[in-house]
Amino acid sequence: MERIESVHQMQSLAISLRQQGKQIALIATQGALHPGHRSLIEAARSQADVVVVANFVNPVQFAANEGFEKYPRDPEADAALCREAGVDVLFAPTQAEMYPKGYSSYVTEEALSKGLCGISRPAHFRGVTTVLSKLLNIVRPDSIIFGQKNAQQAAVARKMITDLNFSVQVFVQPTVREPDGLPFGSRNRLLSAGQREDAGVLFRALQRGKELVDTGVRNTDRVIAEATHILSQKRRVRVIYVSIVDRDTMEPERQIVPGRSMLAIAVWVDEVRLIDNIVL
Amino acid sequence: MERIESVHQMQSLAISLRQQGKQIALIATQGALHPGHRSLIEAARSQADVVVVANFVNPVQFAANEGFEKYPRDPEADAALCREAGVDVLFAPTQAEMYPKGYSSYVTEEALSKGLCGISRPAHFRGVTTVLSKLLNIVRPDSIIFGQKNAQQAAVARKMITDLNFSVQVFVQPTVREPDGLPFGSRNRLLSAGQREDAGVLFRALQRGKELVDTGVRNTDRVIAEATHILSQKRRVRVIYVSIVDRDTMEPERQIVPGRSMLAIAVWVDEVRLIDNIVL
Repeated sequence: MERIESVHQMQSLAISLRQQGKQIALIATQGALHPGHRSLIEAARSQADVVVVANFVNPVQFAANEGFEKYPRDPEADAALCREAGVDVLFAPTQAEMYPKGYSSYVTEEALSKGLCGISRPAHFRGVTTVLSKLLNIVRPDSIIFGQKNAQQAAVARKMITDLNFSVQVFVQPTVREPDGLPFGSRNRLLSAGQREDAGVLFRALQRGKELVDTGVRNTDRVIAEATHILSQKRRVRVIYVSIVDRDTMEPERQIVPGRSMLAIAVWVDEVRLIDNIVL
Repeated sequence: MERIESVHQMQSLAISLRQQGKQIALIATQGALHPGHRSLIEAARSQADVVVVANFVNPVQFAANEGFEKYPRDPEADAALCREAGVDVLFAPTQAEMYPKGYSSYVTEEALSKGLCGISRPAHFRGVTTVLSKLLNIVRPDSIIFGQKNAQQAAVARKMITDLNFSVQVFVQPTVREPDGLPFGSRNRLLSAGQREDAGVLFRALQRGKELVDTGVRNTDRVIAEATHILSQKRRVRVIYVSIVDRDTMEPERQIVPGRSMLAIAVWVDEVRLIDNIVL
């Protein structure tokens, strides 16, 4: 496995790999890698000649109070996981390489990014689409793989990629969950034991929503109310949103369409922000 | 010469040309081609295997009152000029191809785009950087060639290209002028005979600025005042700005540095907006 920090070196390698006709798959991460990331790497492994994992905590997608400094970092454990999972290139640029002094260009998606997490984190997806555009130009992948846990991120990225004519295929892998259903996530490391236990309520709320739909419920308010009620039973959990949206457009659904509608949740568990979703 | 309207067809051709190791040069135009464009084509011809001219009047860079509908269009004359000048591919997509219904992604440059034309046309450069990003992804050029007349556009594009890690070289060609010094420009076609005559004052104002600097003047206010005075002698001419900026950063200069400082002018000649500049 090659470890690269330099943007120029990564770009040169990518151009040369493309010229040799190699297929490149990219997984864009903020590090603190976990089994969810590993499943993305495995999907990439099965479809590309060269798997590149980008490991970069992107300051532009954090607002001032959103915990950029506290975001978990463990570069050596990340490298070990990547090596073991068969990653070819671990690209971990510095902040100064990615955003040099005087940096002033940004990419925005202005429809799918507005709802859900976009309401409480208005600058978040601008950071995501900016860093993704940079990574697409640096790594030149044929495919990029997201996790379903970050469904809105994947949908926004797909829209930006289509709109700006980047030629890269977007794949979304199923969410990987711990035994109690909590999706693996880098922020889980920030949870205390008690917080971790309460966080289990997210999946129970999603499952209850899915059950209701499976038994014929199509009324969005009903499903949202029940999911919210379940979440509210845990003292440490504060709801940011419970929404039912079209899984592709991220637009609120008036009525549930099984297979298309997605129940999406964001909560604070004390000061840790967690998200999850399920297709109904 | 190949004429292509389809984004997909252009992108496929570009990918295949790149795989064959061909160097592609792009000239992004809004059509109504003139000798200024021809000099860009000649520069491209001398450095690349394949010269692509994009001809697309970009609605996103015009505000509601900025004359998108009135912008001169003459696709058959443009095609004839391109054919004669040795262009290999004329890419003229439709608006629906470039901005399909529901289009929602934009690229911004937020420093160099703020001054000069950015003051009176606050959404203009967002449209420019968006369409350029799209064209870079569609045409995959090794180089892109701008004219010095649009110095701010070239500087903003260069900054966006660097920031977002597009790997394309930017070249800027000298302004091509009519006998009285007015730069060739698509909007010149909108001028009546009397307006056209008055427009000659732009170059006289720029030349006077250059003369002053050649004789040792370094005070920006002095040069701006004299240039403005010259412009004000024509009844149809209203000044939008007369500024002296660093030719690379587009930041206002406190004192003139010959070779680095640029005198930039924008005026209305009645309802036609004209720009020009000279390096001092």
